[in-house]
Amino acid sequence: MVSTNGFAAHSSTTPLVPFAYEHRDPGAKDILIDIQFCGICHSDIHQARNEWGNSLYPMVPGHEIVGTVRAVGSEVKKFKVGDLAAVGCMVDSCRTCPSCSAGEEQYCERQATVFTYNSKGKDGKLTWGGYGEHIVLDEDFALSVPKNLDLAAAAPLLCAGITTYSPLKHWKVGPGKKVGIIGLGGLGHMGLKFSHAFGAHTVQFTTSASKIEDAKKLGADEVILTTKEGWATKHAGSFDFILDCVSAEHDLSPYLSLLKRDGTLCAVGAPEKPASIHAFSVLGRRNYTGSMIGGIAETQGMLDFCSKHNIVSDIEMTSFDKIEEAWECVVKGDVKYRFVLDLKTLKR
Amino acid sequence: MVSTNGFAAHSSTTPLVPFAYEHRDPGAKDILIDIQFCGICHSDIHQARNEWGNSLYPMVPGHEIVGTVRAVGSEVKKFKVGDLAAVGCMVDSCRTCPSCSAGEEQYCERQATVFTYNSKGKDGKLTWGGYGEHIVLDEDFALSVPKNLDLAAAAPLLCAGITTYSPLKHWKVGPGKKVGIIGLGGLGHMGLKFSHAFGAHTVQFTTSASKIEDAKKLGADEVILTTKEGWATKHAGSFDFILDCVSAEHDLSPYLSLLKRDGTLCAVGAPEKPASIHAFSVLGRRNYTGSMIGGIAETQGMLDFCSKHNIVSDIEMTSFDKIEEAWECVVKGDVKYRFVLDLKTLKR
Repeated sequence: MVSTNGFAAHSSTTPLVPFAYEHRDPGAKDILIDIQFCGICHSDIHQARNEWGNSLYPMVPGHEIVGTVRAVGSEVKKFKVGDLAAVGCMVDSCRTCPSCSAGEEQYCERQATVFTYNSKGKDGKLTWGGYGEHIVLDEDFALSVPKNLDLAAAAPLLCAGITTYSPLKHWKVGPGKKVGIIGLGGLGHMGLKFSHAFGAHTVQFTTSASKIEDAKKLGADEVILTTKEGWATKHAGSFDFILDCVSAEHDLSPYLSLLKRDGTLCAVGAPEKPASIHAFSVLGRRNYTGSMIGGIAETQGMLDFCSKHNIVSDIEMTSFDKIEEAWECVVKGDVKYRFVLDLKTLKR
Repeated sequence: MVSTNGFAAHSSTTPLVPFAYEHRDPGAKDILIDIQFCGICHSDIHQARNEWGNSLYPMVPGHEIVGTVRAVGSEVKKFKVGDLAAVGCMVDSCRTCPSCSAGEEQYCERQATVFTYNSKGKDGKLTWGGYGEHIVLDEDFALSVPKNLDLAAAAPLLCAGITTYSPLKHWKVGPGKKVGIIGLGGLGHMGLKFSHAFGAHTVQFTTSASKIEDAKKLGADEVILTTKEGWATKHAGSFDFILDCVSAEHDLSPYLSLLKRDGTLCAVGAPEKPASIHAFSVLGRRNYTGSMIGGIAETQGMLDFCSKHNIVSDIEMTSFDKIEEAWECVVKGDVKYRFVLDLKTLKR
């Protein structure tokens, strides 16, 4: 077994504490990664605090994982010792249903997706995430990290990156399209970078006047302050696609009114309360939908795209002794735009 | 001017009464139709009673119109005197915006769609619907009625027909697709007939056990009684497309859970209250959308399809002296499945 030190939540109401646990010894198709960096995602907090009601403890969070391959099984083909490797939100799935066969393992129709943490593997054992020294997984669910990317800043690509890249690709965002990004946080700033890189006319929606300049620097062609009276009227019926990156409750009606015929508003944030949508808001074949991360092959495609266009996340480095403070900042939205844990700060 | 007798609402709270009014003399591109039959649509009632808050009085309702051409302008090409002709929900639009150019005049982006009644034409004058002897309109917005269809039963095709045909065509319903129809009323029974005729595996959802046999006769491969505990579980994630034909308030969550990845739930009924939709219900790229009637060319295509497949509405004939009773039946859903007014019953 691979003895591992990390940080774990033991209940929904107690802070993260140091925790020793074991990963399986790498099997023939497994790789063992020494984790170097792990991004902090808001869903780490939701799950540690059992805000989605499905938490399994002890829980070692973290699904924005980058590091170096330390060992490979006898049948491993994609990796050799010393390679850079990454892990996102999934480490396994049924692999045979129509969604898995289509490379959309996140939508596994047997609901057999094994998540990187807060999940049980096919062996029935709890999975452990990136707030720890090592991870062991089947190479089929591991990604190769292009060498030209800043490794720490690449970590958030594994969740915030693919979560925004996948729907923008699926709905064919590109030149000639007018695209909106709601919210400029961990997800939003990646959506903005990708939409801009895909060549779309990209409009950032924000409630914070203080973020206007940042949005422009990150690639926004226009920034709309949604606290201004009548902000939606001028843009009615003009958007092809809007990516909703906000988890806080907000009214969708004005955004739906911005869509062209056959336009789509896609949620990637998941507010606790349901949205209230009038049928009149979607007449005209305006679509409301949601998207969840992306498939493994698509995630590799995203990393390769990032390599080519030199895209990473804007990050703030943090350490294990400051996790609780970092989490509070994430809850308040006070981070530009993603915290990344340096595994070197983990005391052994 | 073309003196016309019909029935009109003069306010939201008074019954329909006999009313004499005038249509314009047919211009060079206009046709004058002697109306023979007009379907009764629930939206006639909504608008006469100002339930959408946009009513103009006096109002002669009716937008499921069939009759015989009595006069044609000098430049009319599609019709000659004596031809069967039909009119649906629209009589004009801007004709030049992207939607109009794409044959989707119902989504005119200048919001210049002129509706058949409760609307103002380009001359600024009120339009008058099918609860009257005649209608005058530009031939571009009139339809040809195939001779082999029962004329009275063809009338509801102009609204209930095209409203269900258009989304089923747009989302490519056909062989190999599993399609649901929610509600078996005026809209639902046409959706069922079309989905069946397109070759899809068609599932009727209903709250009425008494409608099961009818649904099967009309073409349903399966009928699901949604009053039964756990009705949705068995069919989770299996539908490509669901057409929601219900205007009464109902919970969309179970229907969204029935959709496959990239499946679509499309509303054609418009409940008064907004739907409550949780982002988790649409993750997996499940789409919630709405569709409104269909374009003019598509409406002609629908009539030609009906001619080929011998599809008309199931109707009950009624008369002008029984309009109020018929309307009450429509409000209660007590009609199989569409009332049609015979214009011969209009006393002159």
